[in-house]
Amino acid sequence: MIDSKYFYQQAIALAAAGDELYQRGWVPATSGNFSCRLNADSAIVTASGKHKGRLNPSDFIAVDLKANAISSGKPSAETALHTQLYARFSAIGAVLHCHSPAATVLSMALAEHNELTLENYELLKAFDGVDTHAARVRIPIFANTQDINALALEADQYLAAHPLCPAYLIRGHGVYCWAKDLDSCMRNLEALDFLLHCELEKMRLCR
Amino acid sequence: MIDSKYFYQQAIALAAAGDELYQRGWVPATSGNFSCRLNADSAIVTASGKHKGRLNPSDFIAVDLKANAISSGKPSAETALHTQLYARFSAIGAVLHCHSPAATVLSMALAEHNELTLENYELLKAFDGVDTHAARVRIPIFANTQDINALALEADQYLAAHPLCPAYLIRGHGVYCWAKDLDSCMRNLEALDFLLHCELEKMRLCR
Amino acid sequence: MIDSKYFYQQAIALAAAGDELYQRGWVPATSGNFSCRLNADSAIVTASGKHKGRLNPSDFIAVDLKANAISSGKPSAETALHTQLYARFSAIGAVLHCHSPAATVLSMALAEHNELTLENYELLKAFDGVDTHAARVRIPIFANTQDINALALEADQYLAAHPLCPAYLIRGHGVYCWAKDLDSCMRNLEALDFLLHCELEKMRLCR
Amino acid sequence: MIDSKYFYQQAIALAAAGDELYQRGWVPATSGNFSCRLNADSAIVTASGKHKGRLNPSDFIAVDLKANAISSGKPSAETALHTQLYARFSAIGAVLHCHSPAATVLSMALAEHNELTLENYELLKAFDGVDTHAARVRIPIFANTQDINALALEADQYLAAHPLCPAYLIRGHGVYCWAKDLDSCMRNLEALDFLLHCELEKMRLCR
Repeated sequence: MIDSKYFYQQAIALAAAGDELYQRGWVPATSGNFSCRLNADSAIVTASGKHKGRLNPSDFIAVDLKANAISSGKPSAETALHTQLYARFSAIGAVLHCHSPAATVLSMALAEHNELTLENYELLKAFDGVDTHAARVRIPIFANTQDINALALEADQYLAAHPLCPAYLIRGHGVYCWAKDLDSCMRNLEALDFLLHCELEKMRLCR
Repeated sequence: MIDSKYFYQQAIALAAAGDELYQRGWVPATSGNFSCRLNADSAIVTASGKHKGRLNPSDFIAVDLKANAISSGKPSAETALHTQLYARFSAIGAVLHCHSPAATVLSMALAEHNELTLENYELLKAFDGVDTHAARVRIPIFANTQDINALALEADQYLAAHPLCPAYLIRGHGVYCWAKDLDSCMRNLEALDFLLHCELEKMRLCR
Repeated sequence: MIDSKYFYQQAIALAAAGDELYQRGWVPATSGNFSCRLNADSAIVTASGKHKGRLNPSDFIAVDLKANAISSGKPSAETALHTQLYARFSAIGAVLHCHSPAATVLSMALAEHNELTLENYELLKAFDGVDTHAARVRIPIFANTQDINALALEADQYLAAHPLCPAYLIRGHGVYCWAKDLDSCMRNLEALDFLLHCELEKMRLCR
Repeated sequence: MIDSKYFYQQAIALAAAGDELYQRGWVPATSGNFSCRLNADSAIVTASGKHKGRLNPSDFIAVDLKANAISSGKPSAETALHTQLYARFSAIGAVLHCHSPAATVLSMALAEHNELTLENYELLKAFDGVDTHAARVRIPIFANTQDINALALEADQYLAAHPLCPAYLIRGHGVYCWAKDLDSCMRNLEALDFLLHCELEKMRLCR
């Protein structure tokens, strides 16, 4: 049973997040998708193909954790990547997917790698469970595919083995990031993109 | 016969687009020009030499598809590049021309190439007819010239042979982008500049 | 005789320009200075040491063309670089000096050069007298010095020989740019920084 | 004795500074911390873990110069780095700590160096005591550590020997910057990050 007042509140919060992410240039040309958990069995997710910086409550769909729409409308084509996370981890309350330039380019620049290791940054402490810059945080890089169910399965298998992983990259596509609630998720995404940007910066230095 | 109410509406919409493009830094120093189709035989285009971030309805001119002014004022010097597109493709409803740094520098960096191939980006799916990141989208690069009619002819010959092409670059000058309506055109331009920026980023990486 | 109403109008216009330039990051930490001609013998210039994004009418001083204050307050330490231009060229109505990152870094990167040549950019047409991208626009680079009078003399001698020059760089310092009025000067500065940015971009490309 | 009206005024001023620094991207994901001196023996500092772009007066804590909280709440984990400065230099009235990308990347790029020398920039004159671009301003780079007291001691020993030093970097972490008051501190920080950005730019140039 969907609490319609809660659905509406989450829609407003996600629309505000979308505006902020669009201003940063992280969800260009209707790309990206966002969701929040509604309860143990459902989530609210952005509709397919909408401008993510100009979302209205009518641009959101309730889905079950198998990515089926419960309310009217067409949910994001990548909904299964969100619901996989809610199904695997009961603590996850929000998921954000963006196409930032740093995530896109860095994942392609690391063409021979299936993960990126971040270390020696103070900002690693933004992630749950990290209390020192001397930590090593591994971000997996999955190959892009139009078979979303296959990608959801690959992510699920990785995360089952690495439950502390805070995010993953999809090569040439973008980043998936999650947390207990939307504010924490925005914070994680902000920290992650900062770190991806720094990694890319290091690769630009010739001298 | 020009519908003056529709002309005014399109002028307002183009002015708003111009403000957004100026904020992005894509139409500096009065550069750039924008248009929308008015009907089968005419279009509305920006006047010559105006600050593209501060356009008023009086800064727009109606033109026929041979680039002749129908209403008062001096249309953009590049009007023929717009009208060539409306004449060739009845489905085109809007054309945007910008001078983004990425378009300018990338076209000059690829001095020995007459086209740029974009592949493996999820964001390629922003373009009509592209439904996979594994597509290859070719963007032609034309040499710059002050002979606009010659350039319009060259573009027309290329597009007659490549009707799915979504945009072209003019070396050291900028990008021409089009779509069925202004919102779609802004989305295409946003996607294209993101991709040009990513391509340029890859060329900056030393390590 | 200073027209106080005109002085006030120019102060408001320059303060608005300063706000725009500060938003772009071109006048950090109270750097930069701006002026407009008041009449054949005087100009209005920013006071020394003020935050250039938060100027009030009281932050402007009237000066004669030998850089002496006519009204109360302490004019910019670089006033002589402004008044040299008004004295040499009766058509100049506004002068802007900024410390953009592109101007600062490019002038230092070209350590062995005393001028920068810009060519093949469509945006060169923003400068008076340039009607083709195939033009060659030379921007001199002067060594920095704390002896402003010596620098003003060096600039004066160069410009006497090159009256069509639209701007100059001071190494590790910034750019001086001028035009017939403030709007044209902002346009020239916008075009110039875009071009400096493109030149720097080309120097960043490794592949 | 804390003057509660003055405490409140400083809290408002620091919150405004935090908003500006957040807009610049210098305090992502709740990073960064700010303070002002209240009197000879105490300071006001940001609470731990707050979004630094959305601070309220309740997000500030009064502390003594040994970093102990005087008012309710949990002060920043790095408070001792602020109070070390107020204790050593009676003239210091404000301290700002940010995690800008330039500070983070440059400090890591200079892995073999324990200081960065800035010279030949006109903007060096933003720092107290510098009146020429030909000055050499040394910014120490300390290794990061979670032992804040050890870092405070290392900074104190360095600054006792180099009292004119305007700021220091912590590797992979960020920058500490100080001045007689908050406005001057914002100006110093703006100048410093501009210079760090320029230094990083030079390291990006391949040609």
